[in-house]
Order: sequence, then C-alpha cells, then structure tokens
Amino acid sequence: MKAELLYEGKAKKVYKVQNNPNQLILTYKNDATAFNGGKKASFHGKGRLNNEISAHIFPYLHENGIRTHFIEKMNETEQLVYQTEIIPLEVVVRNLATGSITKRLGIEEKTVFDAPIVELFYKDDALGDPLINDEHALFLSNVTASELQEIKEKALMINRKLGELFRQVNVRLVDFKLEFGRLAEGCIVLADEISPDTCRLWDLKTDEKMDKDVFRQGTGDLLEVYEMILHRLEARS
Amino acid sequence: MKAELLYEGKAKKVYKVQNNPNQLILTYKNDATAFNGGKKASFHGKGRLNNEISAHIFPYLHENGIRTHFIEKMNETEQLVYQTEIIPLEVVVRNLATGSITKRLGIEEKTVFDAPIVELFYKDDALGDPLINDEHALFLSNVTASELQEIKEKALMINRKLGELFRQVNVRLVDFKLEFGRLAEGCIVLADEISPDTCRLWDLKTDEKMDKDVFRQGTGDLLEVYEMILHRLEARS
Repeated sequence: MKAELLYEGKAKKVYKVQNNPNQLILTYKNDATAFNGGKKASFHGKGRLNNEISAHIFPYLHENGIRTHFIEKMNETEQLVYQTEIIPLEVVVRNLATGSITKRLGIEEKTVFDAPIVELFYKDDALGDPLINDEHALFLSNVTASELQEIKEKALMINRKLGELFRQVNVRLVDFKLEFGRLAEGCIVLADEISPDTCRLWDLKTDEKMDKDVFRQGTGDLLEVYEMILHRLEARS
Repeated sequence: MKAELLYEGKAKKVYKVQNNPNQLILTYKNDATAFNGGKKASFHGKGRLNNEISAHIFPYLHENGIRTHFIEKMNETEQLVYQTEIIPLEVVVRNLATGSITKRLGIEEKTVFDAPIVELFYKDDALGDPLINDEHALFLSNVTASELQEIKEKALMINRKLGELFRQVNVRLVDFKLEFGRLAEGCIVLADEISPDTCRLWDLKTDEKMDKDVFRQGTGDLLEVYEMILHRLEARS
C-alpha cells in the first residue's frame, strides 16, 4: 500500500499511497530535535507515542466540528491522512507566556493571556522560521486574506476544544503549534500532528512539564512524560 | 518659553513649554545613529535640515486631511508640537523591499509590494525594537483594536500622500517609519518626525540613496543628500 517516500521531516516521513493520489501515509519517527535542529536525539518509542496521541486527538477534533487531514491510525507508528497542499505557516497559539515570547517581548514568565495570542511563523528552515505578520503571510504564502482569517479563527477554536480536552485529564494547554493544508477540493484543514512535540503541556496542579521542553531543557525523561500524556488521554475515554 | 528637558532621544530633545502643559518643543540634534545605536556620528547642520524637512512635510499632510502633532517651526532647529501620550509602536510602511526585510524573509532586493506592507515594531531599546503582530501590539501597548486599525489605515494614507509629494520632486518613497501619539482629548495623531532619518528616499531616475542609508552604509555625504531633499521640496512650493 505504501509507495515512494515523498518527504522526510525532522519528526515524520511522508509516503505516497499506491493507486490513491489523494491520500498519504505519515510515519512517526523516534527522532527529537530542538533549537532549529541544533539539539538532536533518538528515543525508542517516541514515534509510537506521538502517533497514538495524535490519533487520539484528531478524532476528538472531528467530533467537535473541526476538519483535519486525519483518516485513521494504521498501526503503531503510521497513520493515513488526506494529501494536502502545504500552507507554509506555523500557527502558534499561546495561553500563557513561556519560552521564546518572554525573551522576545520582555513578558514575564507565566503571564496569562486573557485573549490567547496567535502568532504566525514563516516555515523556512534557512531563515529560521521567522515571526511574520498577516501582511507578510499574504505576500509570502498561498492564502487569501479571508483564508488567513479562517485559519486564525480555526486555531482559536482548536485552542478552546483542545484546552477542554486536556483540562479533563488535569493538563494545562500552555501553547501549541499548528499547520494547515489545502485539500484537493480547495478546503483548508488542520494538518501535521498534535502531540507533546508540538504542544506545551503542564500538569494542572504541579506545573510539571509533560512535553518536548523536558528534552529541550534536559530536565526529565521524554518517553516517561509522553507516555503519561497518552495514558491520561486513554483513561478519559 | 522653553522649560525643563523632558526627554532626550537619539535624534531629538523634548522640552516642556512654560505655562502650557499641552505643548512641547522639539529640538533636532546633529547626531546620527544606526544599528540600534551601534554606529554614531555628529553632522553639523543635520538638526536644521531635519527640522526644515519635517516642517515642510507636516503642513503638507495637514492640507491633505492628516492630523499631526505639529504646530509650527520656531527657528532653525526647533518646532512647537502638541504634547501627546506616546504609543510605543514604530509603524513601518514598505513599498519596495530593501534593508532588514530582505534578509529576514528572504525577499529579493527591490521587489515591489503592490499592496504596501505595514509592519509594527515594539519601541523598546533593551529588546532591540522587535517586530510584533497586531495581537502583541494590543497586549503590549495602550491602543484598542479599533485604534490599531485606524493607525494602520492612517499609515497607508500617509504613504499615498507622501509618495505623491516625493514623486513630484523626482524621489521614490521606498519605505518609512512613523510614530503616533494620543492628544489630551483622546485623538490619535501622527507624531515624531518625517525626514531622511526616518524614510528611505531614492532618486526616481538613478536609485541614488538620499537618506540615512548613506551614513549606515558609509557610501556618501549625509549632509549633501539631506540638503538635496530639502532643496527639491522647497523648489516645488
């Protein structure tokens, strides 16, 4: 069923599907990278955990009226998705200030954003994925002004729904990164993955980090905290 | 008439006015700085030139329905303005790609923006005046969403009027930086200065630089090109 490799990213490989140009297979890798590729390591089992977590979250979003590229989990590390034209934007939503924004804008750590902050970054490794504004996005990417508005509104709706999901399992959704793609029929849907690689997740009571920051900062066991996120999500259903 | 010094910036001093809390006196300095203060020099006569150029441009904007803080030129290096509450944003309008944006976003030098690009920077020397988006601006500054919209629309209107003015004197308005302030009665008006310190101005035929880039890049005589801008503007009237 899996045909040739289309693309290999830092955390996933993307394969074509035999006799079906509208679908792709995503294989989750065990590699972890941080600081724009400056720190690298491999964790046996990480690919499975992120595949399982993503495959738990995408159907939850579907139930809540949010369209995504996800079709189904195929096996431990792979999932079937719809082929989309990539929109070269990373859409970040922040509920609490931590990480780069605190240094960039001098905002105190853990400041709560009553209105969540949406940020756009231009997906370009050579440029270091720079922060951009809406006008840059319209100039640099393949979206119209109304599509950009729709993407930002979807990001905020996903924030509300995802925040609810994680609150139910005693996890605080601090911030996260989304990517979107355009289906063959023109619709824009959520793509990529949602996992502790792409979300900052803190224990609701202790603020303990349960995401890739334990790898970035070398403060904990990546597999252990990813496993705990999956475990809590599974215990909920 | 001039009372105590209120503030000294890189290019101007700001004084209170005796017995009039609603007005200020701006004194244009001879200092030139670039690269966030990394390169400095003094040019005897620069203060006069920027004062004269600003005092030429602000009344032109008034004639075109754009409110500013400018009241009148007082002498060679000073002008009387309305006191405003500072809005800590630098509003940049770009008609042509040059300078920082080409490196930051990988855009080819001299690319024409059919829709001019408006950028916001957060005025904070310690942070290096970082680029921000609208949501950052609402969080960090003292403006409402509708005021921010108004500021961006004013910046584009100023771009059109200023572009016309400079075209009449064979100068291309490449990009420029504006600052806005809030009058005691609440209105937001254009503040700061408009000069070859704050605009990129190229000769319309030869693309010769007639602005602070000749100092930044050490490619020409700052006083000579500023004098030429003033001369062309005066010859028009």
